Amino acid sequence: MDRNAEFKRWKAQGLSKADLSRKGSVDEDVVELVQLLNGREQYFTTSSCAGRIILLDGNINGFEVQKQNCCWLLVTHKPCVKDDVIVALKKANGDAILKFEPLILHVQCRQLQDAQILAIRSTHGLEVPLSHKGKLMVTEEYIDFLLKIANQKMEENKKRIERFYNCLQHALEKETITNSHPKEKIKDKNNSSYTHQKKRNPEACGKCIEENDKELENDDDPGISVTIFPEDY
Amino acid sequence: MDRNAEFKRWKAQGLSKADLSRKGSVDEDVVELVQLLNGREQYFTTSSCAGRIILLDGNINGFEVQKQNCCWLLVTHKPCVKDDVIVALKKANGDAILKFEPLILHVQCRQLQDAQILAIRSTHGLEVPLSHKGKLMVTEEYIDFLLKIANQKMEENKKRIERFYNCLQHALEKETITNSHPKEKIKDKNNSSYTHQKKRNPEACGKCIEENDKELENDDDPGISVTIFPEDY
Repeated sequence: MDRNAEFKRWKAQGLSKADLSRKGSVDEDVVELVQLLNGREQYFTTSSCAGRIILLDGNINGFEVQKQNCCWLLVTHKPCVKDDVIVALKKANGDAILKFEPLILHVQCRQLQDAQILAIRSTHGLEVPLSHKGKLMVTEEYIDFLLKIANQKMEENKKRIERFYNCLQHALEKETITNSHPKEKIKDKNNSSYTHQKKRNPEACGKCIEENDKELENDDDPGISVTIFPEDY
Repeated sequence: MDRNAEFKRWKAQGLSKADLSRKGSVDEDVVELVQLLNGREQYFTTSSCAGRIILLDGNINGFEVQKQNCCWLLVTHKPCVKDDVIVALKKANGDAILKFEPLILHVQCRQLQDAQILAIRSTHGLEVPLSHKGKLMVTEEYIDFLLKIANQKMEENKKRIERFYNCLQHALEKETITNSHPKEKIKDKNNSSYTHQKKRNPEACGKCIEENDKELENDDDPGISVTIFPEDY
């Protein structure tokens, strides 16, 4: 079986599986993006979250880093009010932590060049310990202050999803045009050789790339970032 | 010029440049890891941070998400005491945020297979708003509580760097042996085809991969994760 047929088969298998997430369905704010990706032969998604505010009750045995056996006190994909958190906190008997997590998207890609179009990263989170062994360590006023920030991040995250959707659509259209003009394709590849990851496809959607760059400078991402030396595919 | 020679030239250029970071040198806790990578022909590092606790004075114009024009009130790669933070907070006139950031490593890789050995990610951070328009929103007791957590994360981060160093050394040694036995190499590749990103090289260092998997399940990473369909290199 050739490579393309093999990926097609793998994709069909992946998309036919039941949604095993707690929620059992794709988050509303990310449905269009997931459909855009799954509608292209070179991609399929395996997991996604549009972004959420969560309140966890962490390990009660001191300051454990690993959050095993943690309990979700509250999960919302929409803005959240103070009273929801106050009520949920009453159930905490360990170390409760409020988190905001932005968009998460897991995408299987047929080839490296398909993955490179998607390669953006940002840190746009919040992780705030609120209680210790069931005792609240902050004031209600602080929780209110914190939720204003979390809700604002939620709004900003939604805008970024829209921006990413538009940029991706633009890049995929551009790619389709390029692929139907093989000469241009070769020219494009030569131009992009040795370009750093952040600056890949700068022409695809200038605004989007530029803003991501800015954020990366101020607020870098934990983990290991690898850039692969370009080759002719 | 062939691909290998080109990468070699690029690496020599990259490593000969002045260190343009604020600190001007590689963090102590990550020196060995950086040396291990730069000592292999298929890698070179372009940026690194061993992990740090930072106190930022953010934008004073309300709840701005973009942290432009933010000011660093405190940066430390070592455990931190409450009084350091209290003193630094006196200089804040915007929205001060305390952050813990784990290891960051930017690595240029010659080929996709070289990058795959490095492909780990984790979220192991902290991002806590402390003041608003210069007014402290939490108690000193809370700052003390928070620093215990931040310092513990710093210790855990150091252990993870050591574990990553050992796993990487093991994987690179294994790869060197495999490359000198081409038959085995082909066999290995066939076995690893279509393996999911998280489970790649499970035999390389079982403990390391397993623990990373656990964390990813509980505490997923913001951003877009792409898995590339394996091909014969």
